[in-house]
Amino acid sequence: MTSPSLTAPGLTPPDIVRCAYLELVVTDLAASREFYVDILGLTVTYEDENAIYLRPLEEFIHHNLVLRLGPVAAAAALAFRVRTPDDVDRAEAYYQAMGCRTERRADGFVRGIGDSVRVTDPLGFPYEFFYAVEHVERLAWRYELHTPGALVRLDHFNQVTPDVPKGIEYLEGVGFRVTEDIEDEDGVVYAAWLHRKDTVHDTALTGGPGPRLHHIAFSTHEKHNILAICDKLGALRRSDAIERGPGRHGVSNAFYLYIRDPDGHRVEIYTQDYYTGDPDNPVVTWDVHDNQRRDWWGNPVVPSWYTDASLVLDLDGQPVALAERDEPSEMAVTIGADGFSYTREGDTEAGFKLGGQL
Amino acid sequence: MTSPSLTAPGLTPPDIVRCAYLELVVTDLAASREFYVDILGLTVTYEDENAIYLRPLEEFIHHNLVLRLGPVAAAAALAFRVRTPDDVDRAEAYYQAMGCRTERRADGFVRGIGDSVRVTDPLGFPYEFFYAVEHVERLAWRYELHTPGALVRLDHFNQVTPDVPKGIEYLEGVGFRVTEDIEDEDGVVYAAWLHRKDTVHDTALTGGPGPRLHHIAFSTHEKHNILAICDKLGALRRSDAIERGPGRHGVSNAFYLYIRDPDGHRVEIYTQDYYTGDPDNPVVTWDVHDNQRRDWWGNPVVPSWYTDASLVLDLDGQPVALAERDEPSEMAVTIGADGFSYTREGDTEAGFKLGGQL
Amino acid sequence: MTSPSLTAPGLTPPDIVRCAYLELVVTDLAASREFYVDILGLTVTYEDENAIYLRPLEEFIHHNLVLRLGPVAAAAALAFRVRTPDDVDRAEAYYQAMGCRTERRADGFVRGIGDSVRVTDPLGFPYEFFYAVEHVERLAWRYELHTPGALVRLDHFNQVTPDVPKGIEYLEGVGFRVTEDIEDEDGVVYAAWLHRKDTVHDTALTGGPGPRLHHIAFSTHEKHNILAICDKLGALRRSDAIERGPGRHGVSNAFYLYIRDPDGHRVEIYTQDYYTGDPDNPVVTWDVHDNQRRDWWGNPVVPSWYTDASLVLDLDGQPVALAERDEPSEMAVTIGADGFSYTREGDTEAGFKLGGQL
Amino acid sequence: MTSPSLTAPGLTPPDIVRCAYLELVVTDLAASREFYVDILGLTVTYEDENAIYLRPLEEFIHHNLVLRLGPVAAAAALAFRVRTPDDVDRAEAYYQAMGCRTERRADGFVRGIGDSVRVTDPLGFPYEFFYAVEHVERLAWRYELHTPGALVRLDHFNQVTPDVPKGIEYLEGVGFRVTEDIEDEDGVVYAAWLHRKDTVHDTALTGGPGPRLHHIAFSTHEKHNILAICDKLGALRRSDAIERGPGRHGVSNAFYLYIRDPDGHRVEIYTQDYYTGDPDNPVVTWDVHDNQRRDWWGNPVVPSWYTDASLVLDLDGQPVALAERDEPSEMAVTIGADGFSYTREGDTEAGFKLGGQL
Repeated sequence: MTSPSLTAPGLTPPDIVRCAYLELVVTDLAASREFYVDILGLTVTYEDENAIYLRPLEEFIHHNLVLRLGPVAAAAALAFRVRTPDDVDRAEAYYQAMGCRTERRADGFVRGIGDSVRVTDPLGFPYEFFYAVEHVERLAWRYELHTPGALVRLDHFNQVTPDVPKGIEYLEGVGFRVTEDIEDEDGVVYAAWLHRKDTVHDTALTGGPGPRLHHIAFSTHEKHNILAICDKLGALRRSDAIERGPGRHGVSNAFYLYIRDPDGHRVEIYTQDYYTGDPDNPVVTWDVHDNQRRDWWGNPVVPSWYTDASLVLDLDGQPVALAERDEPSEMAVTIGADGFSYTREGDTEAGFKLGGQL
Repeated sequence: MTSPSLTAPGLTPPDIVRCAYLELVVTDLAASREFYVDILGLTVTYEDENAIYLRPLEEFIHHNLVLRLGPVAAAAALAFRVRTPDDVDRAEAYYQAMGCRTERRADGFVRGIGDSVRVTDPLGFPYEFFYAVEHVERLAWRYELHTPGALVRLDHFNQVTPDVPKGIEYLEGVGFRVTEDIEDEDGVVYAAWLHRKDTVHDTALTGGPGPRLHHIAFSTHEKHNILAICDKLGALRRSDAIERGPGRHGVSNAFYLYIRDPDGHRVEIYTQDYYTGDPDNPVVTWDVHDNQRRDWWGNPVVPSWYTDASLVLDLDGQPVALAERDEPSEMAVTIGADGFSYTREGDTEAGFKLGGQL
Repeated sequence: MTSPSLTAPGLTPPDIVRCAYLELVVTDLAASREFYVDILGLTVTYEDENAIYLRPLEEFIHHNLVLRLGPVAAAAALAFRVRTPDDVDRAEAYYQAMGCRTERRADGFVRGIGDSVRVTDPLGFPYEFFYAVEHVERLAWRYELHTPGALVRLDHFNQVTPDVPKGIEYLEGVGFRVTEDIEDEDGVVYAAWLHRKDTVHDTALTGGPGPRLHHIAFSTHEKHNILAICDKLGALRRSDAIERGPGRHGVSNAFYLYIRDPDGHRVEIYTQDYYTGDPDNPVVTWDVHDNQRRDWWGNPVVPSWYTDASLVLDLDGQPVALAERDEPSEMAVTIGADGFSYTREGDTEAGFKLGGQL
Repeated sequence: MTSPSLTAPGLTPPDIVRCAYLELVVTDLAASREFYVDILGLTVTYEDENAIYLRPLEEFIHHNLVLRLGPVAAAAALAFRVRTPDDVDRAEAYYQAMGCRTERRADGFVRGIGDSVRVTDPLGFPYEFFYAVEHVERLAWRYELHTPGALVRLDHFNQVTPDVPKGIEYLEGVGFRVTEDIEDEDGVVYAAWLHRKDTVHDTALTGGPGPRLHHIAFSTHEKHNILAICDKLGALRRSDAIERGPGRHGVSNAFYLYIRDPDGHRVEIYTQDYYTGDPDNPVVTWDVHDNQRRDWWGNPVVPSWYTDASLVLDLDGQPVALAERDEPSEMAVTIGADGFSYTREGDTEAGFKLGGQL
């Protein structure tokens, strides 16, 4: 099979508004429901024995997350909303021009969504583009439904792909712009953040064997909401769902927490990055050896955060085979015997932190 | 003089990115500096004996507020950033086609800004459009500079104009979209909120004698930041600068505070409205008699908040004469002997609250 | 009938640990349950058709609030815990020596409480003293039960009495100590705060017709918890339950909110006063004309807050007749035509605030 | 030398009010000043070339921390305030009766403190007891001085001692009461928390080679204040001062952060434990294998937190020699190859967390 091109010169890409929903295959719907509804407090727009459609409190489109029962835990689609119905046509044409497989469904692939196109993109990810969507109540003012850890918005996706610069080239072609990245002194790019809406990202590319979904992120209004999720997980004796954090990111400047759902899918809870909507928004490049790049407080990134991610499905619903990364891994160059990170440029010794003791 | 048209059919309006800065004439620069720098903690990008250029912590363009010394306290310009240099041309052509007076300056009207056009818009306001701007350090990560009441962004302007539907027609012509409004049962529109960036507004129209500037709003990350500003004003025995709030808005769902600077210019501190970037973002219409529309907790809107606003200047620097509003005022229909607001639809009596006792 | 003495010289008073519970008569138990349980989130320790026993999340004694169904809304008992069983004997002897009516019940007056004595104190209030109490689960770690407005402790009572210095003399006799008070230039005392535990107060005396209960106060951990209660009341269209605040007290430095239950009983939500446990804790005296004494931000105290309070019952369950205050009322000397408050000492004019416009 | 007794039967111990101040020897006064004043924002009551006297915002006694320049980093005194001047006599007599060395100084050992007695206690720690103290301004209302990470009170000390039950016996003799402890299935006690004021502790005993000072803790009002300290350390490229946390304790239920000063002295920032003032406050015992006992979210305790602590000085200013712990160490039984902790009772496997990967 010929690889698709990374761009479709001469064609107008779809005008992507934002990341809009994730279709996630889970292997135990009841366990997932407990996690996303009972613990995280997402609102059920619709559910049946095969799927649960969920949204956070400020969302007015039908859902931001579909949990679909299936045999293999995986991400079935990363869906983006486009500005007009015509942009679905543009998306279909653009991806076909790149040589990507596409599938168009006038009635959508899932409930609540209308005319959509799904593609296997040049990186192997199942992307969807849609405009038509059922509106539901925006629960922003319904404070009687809010919980201490209230999730209010879908913020972003994060994807694992072997070759980050290649991914950037492709995503810039469809209109994304880079806000931040992590590089080393040789110009190796370890990760990049790209946006459409006015935040640091709608998706990010993390260097590693891919295509895989690294995580989906929901946002809260305040930092204490994120701490409340941790407290509740502790109270439920589910603290082992906490993988990393809470902490302050260097990249994005947001406050964060990473947790793992019953299938191991990773969810980030995220708040307070900055406005990026200006056309000349400054790009921030971080040194991979800067120990504050991923956690501003220098707390260690756990190995599983680097190594684990969710499979993605092709348009036939089969897991996509992984390609390895050729360049060094961020974990190798920063943790333990193979790597070193500094707190201050010029530092040569690790400190007493757990990360320095591995 | 012929009134300008409200639109310029056939012409492409400028692609406005966001509200970007306010030029404010103050009568005592030292007193204003104390207020905006020492108390509110805005960062000085530049200052001399005639003007101070200020920005909040996450801003990367030269300034969001210019305090210029002058004889009469007034707003000299409400400036919007456009997407490309060509959009300045488009703005100039568009406003000229409406019959508005315009003035173009290749080097900008103030420091830090390049090629700009200022106009007297169809509502009598001094609007400016620019693309070129000097970049400065985004202080987001500089936590050693943050204060308990840290302001992080410019959020919006709010303008007083007699005829709100007329204002909406004009602003929709240049690309703004309404997110929320306040109406009565007869269809009288008392106020409307309009946006370009992904928030509830870049500017709002408040019905009343105009053109006047009702306020400029800066945002914080969390609600406690706003409370900290109140606490500090109390500690400095400046609590009489607090005009209204803190409270939760019905409109926008944001948490807010209104304070008044030494010249009486009103500043709002604001946080946590919702995402509005989708093309079909639902419009919320509030009943003017709903006592939770402006304060979700039903706390009273003080009369001065309705009656006071800042003069605006024409392109010669002269205060623009005010036109009265023909329709009823929101204050008259909601407060005291002339008006009534309900907590629950169908309520017929005011309660023990101060608003019910005026 | 002879008035009781204010002290019992030569007798050892009981060693009072803290304010412990309030027995409150309500006229509609279902309506009160909705308010205290569904809205405020207090935990039901026990309930039947006549009474509901409630506690906040960090309490380990059986209850801090008893809602008892009755014909007249009133406070039936303000109960204090004492350090040892013998202190109940001391309390009985001490109040009898003052000439107060007392009633002792080995099995307590309410569920969950053992050997107790109730008294009609020299100010006419129904005080109770007990040591023996049933322990229940302290829910501090049960974060799955926490709500955005989580109440964690009973903080204090506040009582209305005509003669504040007389009340202070009596309460100091039983071991309370003053932490703050409000006076005028002639030495008139308008209110005083007195404590046993290490906070600003276990009870306060507010000058006015009495004996009446001004309010009971529960505390939260953070300020946003209090704001969440307001937001929820708005969402339930119950914002008219908000009487005053939220705001920052001058007295106590705490963040506060006053709400009214379905019978009009006042509840304060309160957080973050200071430690007072040292024997020489400095007393803070506020000028009654200082506009920041009751709200640090200078927001107006609503008249109802001064005028309304709950009746209290005698040991036969009958409402106690009120005695008027001889000295000026705080409301008269501070609000509107009769009064004046300053923001800065020496100020002679009120500002644009609502308080200045009454 | 004969060991002192653990109690002095028949003698009345001093009535201890609270932990009051720590005298800490530091080796670089300028570096310590930067840490405690510039970064943490403690207020300087007095300073000269040999010492700095510091207090947090709500303190009204002269200081809670003395930094004294000296050749060896160590804790010179853990000082407690007593209720009356006579309690200093009682302390002296009590410790002498136990066979402890004591030293009395009518003018105090440090500035701002009057008549005091210092002792080498039965565990080898330098304890001080005083009543007389200079009052200074309580800065609670001085919000213009508050920082995002505002420290408001001294909360507690934490001491390392080999034999925790022995330490408990001694401290209960002088009036402390246990609130929580950590034990294993064989009854080995790893740590205990003891209080005088109405909080979880005024001091704690941590099992290990001692006598050493494990840490001193200051409290903030809210959790975001603690996060702000982390953010600021990151901004100053001092994130390696963060040793452990921020997190939620299981023990005490407080939110916490551990940082290390330039000499390696450990400082905890702490907020929101619970009220313990009732005489029958329930004791909470934690299983040493419960992975949520020290961090409710199951985040790992770093080894240095277990192994490092500050030397203490005897009354001649010489470091006290350490005695080893005979019983197993908490670190050995919980981390890595030698130990195991569970999230849920009955768990047999560690998870993906860093702590499980050591």
